[in-house]
Amino acid sequence: MTMVLPCKKKVSVFPWAAVLVVFFTLPLLLHAQGDPWVADKAFLREIYDRALSDGKAYPWLRDLCYGAGHRLSGSPGAEKAVRWAKAVLDTCGLDSVWLQPVMVPRWERGAPEKVEVLSTPRYKGFRLNALALGGSIGTDGKPISGEVIEIRRWEELDSLGRQSVAGKIVFYNRPMECRHVNTFEAYGGAVDQRVHGPSRAAKYGAIGVLVRSMGLALDDYPHTGSLRYDSTYALIPAVAISTNAAERLSALLRQEKSARVSMTLHCRTLPDVLSYNVIGEIRGTQEPDKIILVGGHLDSWDVGHGAHDDGAGCVQSMEVLYLLRRLGYRPRHTVRCVLFMNEENGLRGGLTYAAAAEEREELHLFALESDAGGFTPRGFSFDADPEFIDYYYDQVAQFEELFRPYGLMFIRGGSGADIGPLRPQKGLLAGLRPDSQRYFDFHHTAADLFEAVHPRELQLGSAAMAALVYLIDKYGL
Amino acid sequence: MTMVLPCKKKVSVFPWAAVLVVFFTLPLLLHAQGDPWVADKAFLREIYDRALSDGKAYPWLRDLCYGAGHRLSGSPGAEKAVRWAKAVLDTCGLDSVWLQPVMVPRWERGAPEKVEVLSTPRYKGFRLNALALGGSIGTDGKPISGEVIEIRRWEELDSLGRQSVAGKIVFYNRPMECRHVNTFEAYGGAVDQRVHGPSRAAKYGAIGVLVRSMGLALDDYPHTGSLRYDSTYALIPAVAISTNAAERLSALLRQEKSARVSMTLHCRTLPDVLSYNVIGEIRGTQEPDKIILVGGHLDSWDVGHGAHDDGAGCVQSMEVLYLLRRLGYRPRHTVRCVLFMNEENGLRGGLTYAAAAEEREELHLFALESDAGGFTPRGFSFDADPEFIDYYYDQVAQFEELFRPYGLMFIRGGSGADIGPLRPQKGLLAGLRPDSQRYFDFHHTAADLFEAVHPRELQLGSAAMAALVYLIDKYGL
Repeated sequence: MTMVLPCKKKVSVFPWAAVLVVFFTLPLLLHAQGDPWVADKAFLREIYDRALSDGKAYPWLRDLCYGAGHRLSGSPGAEKAVRWAKAVLDTCGLDSVWLQPVMVPRWERGAPEKVEVLSTPRYKGFRLNALALGGSIGTDGKPISGEVIEIRRWEELDSLGRQSVAGKIVFYNRPMECRHVNTFEAYGGAVDQRVHGPSRAAKYGAIGVLVRSMGLALDDYPHTGSLRYDSTYALIPAVAISTNAAERLSALLRQEKSARVSMTLHCRTLPDVLSYNVIGEIRGTQEPDKIILVGGHLDSWDVGHGAHDDGAGCVQSMEVLYLLRRLGYRPRHTVRCVLFMNEENGLRGGLTYAAAAEEREELHLFALESDAGGFTPRGFSFDADPEFIDYYYDQVAQFEELFRPYGLMFIRGGSGADIGPLRPQKGLLAGLRPDSQRYFDFHHTAADLFEAVHPRELQLGSAAMAALVYLIDKYGL
Repeated sequence: MTMVLPCKKKVSVFPWAAVLVVFFTLPLLLHAQGDPWVADKAFLREIYDRALSDGKAYPWLRDLCYGAGHRLSGSPGAEKAVRWAKAVLDTCGLDSVWLQPVMVPRWERGAPEKVEVLSTPRYKGFRLNALALGGSIGTDGKPISGEVIEIRRWEELDSLGRQSVAGKIVFYNRPMECRHVNTFEAYGGAVDQRVHGPSRAAKYGAIGVLVRSMGLALDDYPHTGSLRYDSTYALIPAVAISTNAAERLSALLRQEKSARVSMTLHCRTLPDVLSYNVIGEIRGTQEPDKIILVGGHLDSWDVGHGAHDDGAGCVQSMEVLYLLRRLGYRPRHTVRCVLFMNEENGLRGGLTYAAAAEEREELHLFALESDAGGFTPRGFSFDADPEFIDYYYDQVAQFEELFRPYGLMFIRGGSGADIGPLRPQKGLLAGLRPDSQRYFDFHHTAADLFEAVHPRELQLGSAAMAALVYLIDKYGL
């Protein structure tokens, strides 16, 4: 597909005469008009007023959490969520709402997993709060058991090698680094244990894996999440244990080096099934072929409500379109809300969406994802192809001042997993950046419930997203 | 007292020759030295690392909340808190720690108040969750009752006048305005009902007052807080009722205009008693007579733990000195932590402290208060005498960039109630500005418990405060 880059295009036909005219008349114009942002400031205020006084995201989130519940790809909850989201978007006065078919993996946890200490008289039968990692093989419901070997650094595992690891259960216990202010950095520095740990242990003959949960708090909630098997090695079962359980197991191992643990997992992977991305849009009045996308992911893990991850991002994205419609704004570009399926364990929704966009030659000028929790928004992070990021960042930087009264900052950084596959289109990508301090207290756990989301914090996120979409739609990129 | 203003002094002897030298050599110096803030950035990072990995504020807050509990001025809890705070500061390696005597008012709630609907068959005996306002007179434990008259705007009360109000119970039910992003603005726009409502109702002969709680959430917690009687009028008893109770009572009044309510209050005011501000300091190495103050208030309301209000500000202030000591920083100016007594119902601690400072001719270069909750810090607001605020704000604005990686913004605005009396000294005043979305879910309620404070959010506040104190100490004002 030949992509016309709006930024490049603009630059290549740069009208120097117009620049000179603007250069000499701009001060006069500014003086005459006063604050050039006055209308935008007023509209941002309207957006925030509406979101805070008559917000839909919060009641929608309640309906999603209590109506569909958790919604792992291929589950009944995911299907309910698809139907619910389409039905709600159908009431929002959009120009079109549709379902985009996506084949998704289907993994089932089955009966609750059981992980217990076998060996020491003192701890025998001590249960470790555990959740199988998404995608893990099961044990056919029969216990497997082995000595536990605790690993904090990859080098330890490699230097122990097959002779020390074979036949054992590897316990990855490197905590998230608490000194990061942004907890996503702490997550990024520890999650390799969960993603790659099972196959790296299998390489040396381990029979199972325990991973310390990805959380900064010491508590009893195990955090699930996906693993990635390397098919070079045997597939072995893997569970996350709560941070408290990890601390206790580590203490126990200091007392008794050869402590044994048993793991019983009922999980299994079934054939792929059909599911959907849910999409709604307002057609642009001037450049309908250029798309501004706002989205989150509709699937969640199979515990809790998936309220912060990512029910919040879905209802916020829906509300962006609702707010613009409700406030009578007619976008120049097509503004599209996409609720992606299967971010958690496959990214099939994001990949399918981007492939279809490529095929239809749909140009995404801008894509914004909310997938970092429903907490107070702190800003946006912007990402793009390295060739264009400086240009884009300069373009949006002019808007930052408008967000200052609302406490938002702009940074360069990542955007969102689901919109990542749009990167080759070379448009601007962005992520809503909420306060991150509490996110990993809930992420992928049974505690990620509707009640963990604060109504005003959620609504402030919708407002911030709608404001940014409005500005980029109005001024282009 | 003749005050030497550090800023004025600097400006009046402005060395023009030096300016010229700096002007021409600065580029060279900068080039030679690289980033002029490099040492400061490293020290800020050290402060944050320590606060996040080995913070004391959070365990101290646990000790305060569970050791002393709530601590209204003159109560046993307040006395325990004074002893506890002094004992902790004594372990921090400071140069001196002392108690400053303060005579404080002593108001007691007595047995729980009872507010119930009397009249309608449907609602008879319906209890309204209530807390007497601090300083309210009681009813000697006997019920008083009257028709209820609902008021949303002062004009309504004034136009009803004595003939409609006399002998009745006035119910102020103007909600906090949810459209403010900063919830303190919403509070500021509604709290006049609580502070002035009782006497303004008494002016027209009302016999009692119910006030809708100062909270944005609809819930069952009544929020207490102080009232201010105008001695021109009769003193009448006044309670806050929960927002849910206010909604229900309002609905009931729409059905039955002459609904009656009874109020039974056991509260009373006793003679003033002796209490203390708790103070600790590190003497300055170069300008020990100039003081940089950091503080919060040790007293709280008599419900919950007073964890956010203002246990958080106390332990953060204590930790600022602890961190500077622990990191081996030797301040140029005297850095002093003051835990004020009686902010909630008298401000006697702040007034006593400022009067003593005036008498001893102690110059406060800078005072920083944390009294807006233990939530993620969003920035600082700066205040000063109007004559000097521009100068000061320019001085500190250069530091804002250093806080950007930590997500903090500087604004002009209020500082803190306890340091307000230092304003005539014409130094710079500031307040820590944490995220405000959840604050009024807890403020002055039984829900303001230790568990409502998040360890990382609290510790980030300590770090931010220590960082600002360090920069102002190092570079002066």
